[in-house]
Amino acid sequence: MKKFEEETIHTEKIYDGKVVKLQVDDVILPNGKKSKRELIKHPGAVGIIPITKDKKIVFVEQYRKPLEKTLVEIPAGKLEAGEKPEITAIRELEEETGYTTNSLQFVASFYTSPGFADEIMHLYITDNIVPLEHEVAGDDDEFVELIELTLQEAIQYVKEQRIHDAKTNYAVLYLQTLERM
Amino acid sequence: MKKFEEETIHTEKIYDGKVVKLQVDDVILPNGKKSKRELIKHPGAVGIIPITKDKKIVFVEQYRKPLEKTLVEIPAGKLEAGEKPEITAIRELEEETGYTTNSLQFVASFYTSPGFADEIMHLYITDNIVPLEHEVAGDDDEFVELIELTLQEAIQYVKEQRIHDAKTNYAVLYLQTLERM
Repeated sequence: MKKFEEETIHTEKIYDGKVVKLQVDDVILPNGKKSKRELIKHPGAVGIIPITKDKKIVFVEQYRKPLEKTLVEIPAGKLEAGEKPEITAIRELEEETGYTTNSLQFVASFYTSPGFADEIMHLYITDNIVPLEHEVAGDDDEFVELIELTLQEAIQYVKEQRIHDAKTNYAVLYLQTLERM
Repeated sequence: MKKFEEETIHTEKIYDGKVVKLQVDDVILPNGKKSKRELIKHPGAVGIIPITKDKKIVFVEQYRKPLEKTLVEIPAGKLEAGEKPEITAIRELEEETGYTTNSLQFVASFYTSPGFADEIMHLYITDNIVPLEHEVAGDDDEFVELIELTLQEAIQYVKEQRIHDAKTNYAVLYLQTLERM
């Protein structure tokens, strides 16, 4: 057994939903004691940093039911089964912003909440976006509003906690580090 | 009703655990249609960026059951009921690293997975840490190993995806942006 690994001795499947699955595992810890782990299974997600020709970052504001409020975020969405993250990224960009691109650059992949969930977020960037000629029908249950900000404005949003979402905070810092703008 | 808000017409409580709660809400969308939202309730968490006198960042490597592997992360932990995030931050620092501090600086708060969970992460930094004289008994079910890295080493870990955890990626970029080291 690898260092720190926990041996699963029983899995109780609690819920199998459209977005998440929940299971509770009984495990044996490295010290031989038993414990329980509550585990959320998630299909994974993508985020995309779209930058316009005049060097503005395209954000979306949307209502997030878990928080009961709207957040300002980069466009993002969950992976469909078997879908390549690049495909998801372009689909979400089109649905949420009305822009499209044929040039994506990979930024990073990271786990969002590794203490209780397996969600992984694949982050991309593009500074080559064009408006779609025809609107794409988005998810039936998504309502978003575009907000285009300069990097300096976005940094100010982060400082004021008007942007306070892990992937979006990361995106703004990433741009600040690059000073691409 | 505020822009985009979703009206909850029914809540089904599925699970009430030690770390997470799961409920499924029936909602009415802004367009009048009905939908379901799977919602994870989480007590919130803190992360702390500890920097040693010789300007190394203290990370912990630990097994994450949802991923079935170990991750390299900044010290972090979930809030206990009614606990101030600063108190949690110092407790987790002591338990996971054997260091303590009496000077914490707030960096940012952000939601980690706003699409399905309400977890908020409060991030702190300290460059004033001292080893504890006596070891603190940590959580019974936590096994961690310390890794101290220079900023340049940490940036390399991020590039190689040996660090790939949202809060930790953010922490490394934050230090890079500050160039505090």
